[in-house]
Amino acid sequence: MTTTRRIIGFDPSLVACGWGVIDVVGNKTRHVAHGVIRPPRKEPLASRLSFLFVACQAAIDEFRPSEAGVEEAFMKDNAMSALKLGQARAACILAATQSGLIVGEYAARLVKKSVVGTGAADKAQVAHMMNLLLPGANVSAGDAADALAIAITHANHAG
Amino acid sequence: MTTTRRIIGFDPSLVACGWGVIDVVGNKTRHVAHGVIRPPRKEPLASRLSFLFVACQAAIDEFRPSEAGVEEAFMKDNAMSALKLGQARAACILAATQSGLIVGEYAARLVKKSVVGTGAADKAQVAHMMNLLLPGANVSAGDAADALAIAITHANHAG
Repeated sequence: MTTTRRIIGFDPSLVACGWGVIDVVGNKTRHVAHGVIRPPRKEPLASRLSFLFVACQAAIDEFRPSEAGVEEAFMKDNAMSALKLGQARAACILAATQSGLIVGEYAARLVKKSVVGTGAADKAQVAHMMNLLLPGANVSAGDAADALAIAITHANHAG
Repeated sequence: MTTTRRIIGFDPSLVACGWGVIDVVGNKTRHVAHGVIRPPRKEPLASRLSFLFVACQAAIDEFRPSEAGVEEAFMKDNAMSALKLGQARAACILAATQSGLIVGEYAARLVKKSVVGTGAADKAQVAHMMNLLLPGANVSAGDAADALAIAITHANHAG
Protein backbone atom coordinates (compact mmCIF):
# COMPACT_ATOMS: atom_id res chain seq x y z
CA MET A 1 0.00 0.00 0.00
CA THR A 2 1.30 3.44 -0.96
CA THR A 3 0.51 6.39 1.26
CA THR A 4 -0.62 9.64 -0.28
CA ARG A 5 0.87 12.92 0.93
CA ARG A 6 -1.38 15.89 0.29
CA ILE A 7 0.47 19.21 0.19
CA ILE A 8 -0.71 22.79 -0.12
CA GLY A 9 1.63 25.46 -1.49
CA PHE A 10 1.23 29.18 -0.82
CA ASP A 11 2.65 32.07 -2.83
CA PRO A 12 1.98 34.84 -0.28
CA SER A 13 0.74 38.27 -1.31
CA LEU A 14 -1.74 40.77 0.10
CA VAL A 15 -2.98 41.50 -3.44
CA ALA A 16 -3.19 38.07 -5.09
CA CYS A 17 -2.14 35.09 -2.98
CA GLY A 18 -1.79 31.87 -4.97
CA TRP A 19 -2.47 28.47 -3.44
CA GLY A 20 -2.21 25.02 -4.95
CA VAL A 21 -2.89 21.50 -3.67
CA ILE A 22 -1.16 18.36 -4.96
CA ASP A 23 -1.12 14.69 -4.02
CA VAL A 24 2.11 12.74 -3.93
CA VAL A 25 1.82 8.97 -4.35
CA GLY A 26 5.19 7.27 -4.44
CA ASN A 27 7.22 9.39 -6.83
CA LYS A 28 4.17 10.63 -8.75
CA THR A 29 2.44 13.95 -8.25
CA ARG A 30 -1.18 14.74 -9.08
CA HIS A 31 -2.96 18.10 -9.33
CA VAL A 32 -5.85 18.47 -6.89
CA ALA A 33 -6.88 22.12 -6.95
CA HIS A 34 -5.55 25.67 -7.06
CA GLY A 35 -6.80 29.21 -6.73
CA VAL A 36 -5.93 32.83 -6.06
CA ILE A 37 -7.08 34.77 -2.99
CA ARG A 38 -7.65 38.50 -3.57
CA PRO A 39 -8.33 40.38 -0.32
CA PRO A 40 -10.49 43.49 -0.94
CA ARG A 41 -7.96 46.23 -1.76
CA LYS A 42 -9.79 49.16 -0.20
CA GLU A 43 -10.29 47.60 3.23
CA PRO A 44 -7.99 48.41 6.18
CA LEU A 45 -4.95 46.16 6.60
CA ALA A 46 -6.48 44.23 9.53
CA SER A 47 -9.51 43.29 7.37
CA ARG A 48 -7.35 42.26 4.41
CA LEU A 49 -5.10 40.10 6.63
CA SER A 50 -8.14 38.51 8.25
CA PHE A 51 -9.68 37.86 4.80
CA LEU A 52 -6.44 36.20 3.65
CA PHE A 53 -6.09 34.11 6.84
CA VAL A 54 -9.73 32.90 6.67
CA ALA A 55 -9.48 32.12 2.93
CA CYS A 56 -6.25 30.13 3.47
CA GLN A 57 -7.97 28.19 6.25
CA ALA A 58 -11.00 27.59 3.98
CA ALA A 59 -8.73 26.02 1.32
CA ILE A 60 -7.10 23.88 4.02
CA ASP A 61 -10.50 22.84 5.44
CA GLU A 62 -11.80 21.91 1.99
CA PHE A 63 -8.81 19.88 0.76
CA ARG A 64 -7.33 18.69 4.08
CA PRO A 65 -3.61 18.71 3.26
CA SER A 66 -1.28 17.59 6.05
CA GLU A 67 1.72 19.65 4.93
CA ALA A 68 2.27 23.15 3.59
CA GLY A 69 5.02 24.85 1.60
CA VAL A 70 5.45 28.62 1.70
CA GLU A 71 7.79 30.70 -0.43
CA GLU A 72 10.67 32.05 1.60
CA ALA A 73 11.39 35.71 1.03
CA PHE A 74 14.75 37.39 0.65
CA MET A 75 14.26 41.09 0.35
CA LYS A 76 17.05 43.29 -0.83
CA ASP A 77 15.43 46.56 -1.73
CA ASN A 78 12.08 48.05 -0.75
CA ALA A 79 11.42 47.88 3.00
CA MET A 80 7.72 48.82 2.72
CA SER A 81 7.14 45.97 0.23
CA ALA A 82 8.99 43.64 2.60
CA LEU A 83 6.74 44.67 5.48
CA LYS A 84 3.59 43.96 3.43
CA LEU A 85 4.94 40.65 2.17
CA GLY A 86 5.88 39.67 5.74
CA GLN A 87 2.31 40.28 6.84
CA ALA A 88 0.88 38.19 3.99
CA ARG A 89 3.36 35.37 4.67
CA ALA A 90 2.40 35.28 8.35
CA ALA A 91 -1.31 34.98 7.45
CA CYS A 92 -0.56 31.94 5.23
CA ILE A 93 1.83 30.34 7.73
CA LEU A 94 -0.55 30.86 10.68
CA ALA A 95 -3.52 29.47 8.70
CA ALA A 96 -1.39 26.34 8.21
CA THR A 97 0.05 26.03 11.74
CA GLN A 98 -3.33 26.66 13.41
CA SER A 99 -4.77 23.79 11.32
CA GLY A 100 -1.95 21.53 12.53
CA LEU A 101 -0.01 21.37 9.24
CA ILE A 102 3.74 20.86 8.95
CA VAL A 103 5.16 23.98 7.28
CA GLY A 104 8.24 24.17 5.05
CA GLU A 105 9.76 27.33 3.58
CA TYR A 106 11.53 27.40 0.23
CA ALA A 107 13.49 30.17 -1.45
CA ALA A 108 12.18 31.26 -4.86
CA ARG A 109 15.43 30.14 -6.53
CA LEU A 110 15.12 26.65 -5.03
CA VAL A 111 11.48 26.42 -6.19
CA LYS A 112 12.46 27.36 -9.76
CA LYS A 113 15.43 25.00 -9.70
CA SER A 114 13.22 22.15 -8.43
CA VAL A 115 10.60 22.45 -11.15
CA VAL A 116 12.44 23.97 -14.12
CA GLY A 117 16.04 22.99 -13.44
CA THR A 118 17.38 26.53 -13.14
CA GLY A 119 17.00 29.12 -10.39
CA ALA A 120 16.74 31.83 -13.02
CA ALA A 121 13.54 30.51 -14.67
CA ASP A 122 10.79 33.03 -15.37
CA LYS A 123 7.12 32.78 -14.41
CA ALA A 124 6.04 31.52 -17.86
CA GLN A 125 8.53 28.62 -17.65
CA VAL A 126 7.27 27.69 -14.16
CA ALA A 127 3.64 27.71 -15.40
CA HIS A 128 4.62 25.61 -18.45
CA MET A 129 6.33 23.00 -16.25
CA MET A 130 3.33 22.88 -13.90
CA ASN A 131 1.06 21.94 -16.79
CA LEU A 132 3.56 19.21 -17.80
CA LEU A 133 4.12 17.85 -14.30
CA LEU A 134 0.50 18.16 -13.21
CA PRO A 135 -1.73 17.17 -16.16
CA GLY A 136 -5.11 18.85 -15.95
CA ALA A 137 -3.82 21.75 -13.85
CA ASN A 138 -4.28 24.27 -16.69
CA VAL A 139 -2.60 27.09 -14.77
CA SER A 140 -1.22 30.26 -16.29
CA ALA A 141 1.75 32.33 -15.11
CA GLY A 142 -0.49 34.95 -13.52
CA ASP A 143 -2.40 32.22 -11.75
CA ALA A 144 -1.41 29.86 -8.94
CA ALA A 145 1.45 28.23 -10.90
CA ASP A 146 4.05 29.39 -8.36
CA ALA A 147 1.97 27.99 -5.49
CA LEU A 148 1.81 24.56 -7.18
CA ALA A 149 5.58 24.75 -7.79
CA ILE A 150 6.10 25.45 -4.08
CA ALA A 151 3.96 22.41 -3.21
CA ILE A 152 6.08 20.23 -5.54
CA THR A 153 9.29 21.64 -4.02
CA HIS A 154 7.98 20.75 -0.57
CA ALA A 155 7.17 17.23 -1.80
CA ASN A 156 10.78 16.79 -2.97
CA HIS A 157 12.49 18.38 0.04
CA ALA A 158 10.44 17.50 3.12
CA GLY A 159 9.63 14.21 4.77
CA MET B 1 -23.74 55.00 34.06
CA THR B 2 -20.32 55.22 32.42
CA THR B 3 -19.24 52.46 30.06
CA THR B 4 -15.77 51.01 30.32
CA ARG B 5 -13.71 50.46 27.18
CA ARG B 6 -11.06 47.80 27.60
CA ILE B 7 -8.19 48.12 25.14
CA ILE B 8 -5.15 45.95 24.44
CA GLY B 9 -2.05 47.48 22.85
CA PHE B 10 0.57 45.45 20.97
CA ASP B 11 4.17 46.43 20.26
CA PRO B 12 4.91 43.72 17.66
CA SER B 13 8.23 41.87 17.57
CA LEU B 14 9.30 38.30 16.91
CA VAL B 15 11.86 38.58 19.72
CA ALA B 16 10.00 40.42 22.51
CA CYS B 17 6.43 41.46 21.76
CA GLY B 18 4.98 43.82 24.38
CA TRP B 19 1.28 43.86 25.23
CA GLY B 20 -0.64 46.04 27.66
CA VAL B 21 -4.29 46.22 28.71
CA ILE B 22 -6.01 49.37 29.99
CA ASP B 23 -9.54 50.35 30.95
CA VAL B 24 -10.97 53.69 29.89
CA VAL B 25 -13.82 55.05 32.02
CA GLY B 26 -14.96 58.48 30.87
CA ASN B 27 -11.72 60.38 30.42
CA LYS B 28 -9.80 58.29 32.95
CA THR B 29 -7.49 55.41 32.14
CA ARG B 30 -6.58 52.55 34.43
CA HIS B 31 -3.81 49.94 34.16
CA VAL B 32 -5.09 46.36 33.98
CA ALA B 33 -2.14 44.18 32.97
CA HIS B 34 0.90 43.99 30.73
CA GLY B 35 3.52 41.50 29.64
CA VAL B 36 6.13 40.56 27.09
CA ILE B 37 5.87 37.54 24.76
CA ARG B 38 9.20 35.96 23.84
CA PRO B 39 8.84 33.25 21.15
CA PRO B 40 11.59 30.60 21.45
CA ARG B 41 14.44 32.01 19.35
CA LYS B 42 15.83 28.73 18.03
CA GLU B 43 12.55 27.38 16.66
CA PRO B 44 11.64 27.65 12.95
CA LEU B 45 9.75 30.79 11.90
CA ALA B 46 6.39 28.97 11.64
CA SER B 47 6.68 27.81 15.26
CA ARG B 48 7.69 31.27 16.51
CA LEU B 49 4.79 32.92 14.66
CA SER B 50 2.37 30.32 15.99
CA PHE B 51 3.74 30.83 19.54
CA LEU B 52 3.25 34.60 19.19
CA PHE B 53 -0.27 34.25 17.74
CA VAL B 54 -1.38 31.82 20.47
CA ALA B 55 0.16 33.96 23.25
CA CYS B 56 -1.58 37.11 21.92
CA GLN B 57 -4.87 35.20 21.84
CA ALA B 58 -4.24 33.96 25.41
CA ALA B 59 -3.84 37.57 26.64
CA ILE B 60 -7.05 38.51 24.79
CA ASP B 61 -8.90 35.49 26.23
CA GLU B 62 -7.75 36.30 29.76
CA PHE B 63 -8.52 40.04 29.79
CA ARG B 64 -11.33 40.22 27.19
CA PRO B 65 -10.60 43.61 25.59
CA SER B 66 -13.00 44.71 22.82
CA GLU B 67 -10.47 46.87 20.96
CA ALA B 68 -6.83 46.62 20.01
CA GLY B 69 -4.13 49.10 19.04
CA VAL B 70 -1.08 48.00 17.06
CA GLU B 71 1.97 50.06 16.27
CA GLU B 72 2.08 51.01 12.61
CA ALA B 73 5.43 50.50 10.96
CA PHE B 74 7.23 52.79 8.57
CA MET B 75 10.40 51.13 7.41
CA LYS B 76 13.04 53.10 5.65
CA ASP B 77 16.12 50.96 5.75
CA ASN B 78 16.56 47.23 6.33
CA ALA B 79 14.22 45.09 4.20
CA MET B 80 14.92 41.85 6.11
CA SER B 81 13.99 43.55 9.43
CA ALA B 82 10.85 44.88 7.73
CA LEU B 83 9.90 41.38 6.62
CA LYS B 84 10.32 40.00 10.15
CA LEU B 85 8.41 42.88 11.70
CA GLY B 86 5.61 42.43 9.14
CA GLN B 87 5.26 38.80 10.16
CA ALA B 88 5.12 39.69 13.87
CA ARG B 89 2.57 42.46 13.22
CA ALA B 90 0.32 40.07 11.29
CA ALA B 91 0.36 37.56 14.17
CA CYS B 92 -0.77 40.29 16.61
CA ILE B 93 -3.38 41.72 14.23
CA LEU B 94 -4.80 38.29 13.36
CA ALA B 95 -4.97 37.26 17.02
CA ALA B 96 -7.11 40.39 17.54
CA THR B 97 -9.31 40.12 14.41
CA GLN B 98 -9.97 36.39 14.93
CA SER B 99 -11.19 37.21 18.47
CA GLY B 100 -13.56 39.83 17.00
CA LEU B 101 -11.67 42.92 18.23
CA ILE B 102 -11.69 46.29 16.49
CA VAL B 103 -8.09 47.02 15.46
CA GLY B 104 -6.48 50.44 15.13
CA GLU B 105 -2.97 51.15 13.87
CA TYR B 106 -0.86 54.06 15.11
CA ALA B 107 2.48 55.37 13.90
CA ALA B 108 5.25 55.40 16.52
CA ARG B 109 5.52 59.22 16.30
CA LEU B 110 1.78 59.60 17.00
CA VAL B 111 2.05 57.23 19.98
CA LYS B 112 4.92 59.27 21.47
CA LYS B 113 3.16 62.54 20.77
CA SER B 114 -0.03 61.23 22.42
CA VAL B 115 1.59 60.18 25.66
CA VAL B 116 4.67 62.43 26.00
CA GLY B 117 3.70 65.43 23.86
CA THR B 118 6.50 65.08 21.34
CA GLY B 119 6.99 62.58 18.52
CA ALA B 120 10.71 62.52 19.27
CA ALA B 121 10.38 61.14 22.83
CA ASP B 122 12.68 58.25 23.79
CA LYS B 123 11.68 54.93 25.35
CA ALA B 124 12.58 56.04 28.89
CA GLN B 125 10.24 59.07 28.60
CA VAL B 126 7.42 56.84 27.35
CA ALA B 127 7.91 54.43 30.27
CA HIS B 128 8.03 57.36 32.74
CA MET B 129 4.73 58.75 31.39
CA MET B 130 3.09 55.31 31.55
CA ASN B 131 3.86 55.09 35.26
CA LEU B 132 2.38 58.59 35.73
CA LEU B 133 -0.74 58.00 33.61
CA LEU B 134 -1.31 54.44 34.81
CA PRO B 135 -0.53 54.31 38.55
CA GLY B 136 0.49 50.83 39.60
CA ALA B 137 1.72 49.86 36.14
CA ASN B 138 5.39 49.81 37.22
CA VAL B 139 6.68 49.28 33.71
CA SER B 140 10.21 49.90 32.55
CA ALA B 141 11.39 51.03 29.10
CA GLY B 142 12.50 47.52 28.15
CA ASP B 143 9.14 46.20 29.27
CA ALA B 144 5.65 46.64 27.78
CA ALA B 145 5.62 50.45 28.20
CA ASP B 146 5.25 51.02 24.45
CA ALA B 147 2.34 48.58 24.27
CA LEU B 148 0.51 50.47 27.06
CA ALA B 149 1.24 53.74 25.24
CA ILE B 150 -0.29 52.27 22.07
CA ALA B 151 -3.41 51.27 24.05
CA ILE B 152 -3.71 54.85 25.40
CA THR B 153 -3.24 56.27 21.89
CA HIS B 154 -6.03 54.01 20.64
CA ALA B 155 -8.25 55.20 23.54
CA ASN B 156 -7.70 58.82 22.44
CA HIS B 157 -8.04 58.31 18.68
CA ALA B 158 -10.67 55.60 18.14
CA GLY B 159 -14.38 55.41 18.92
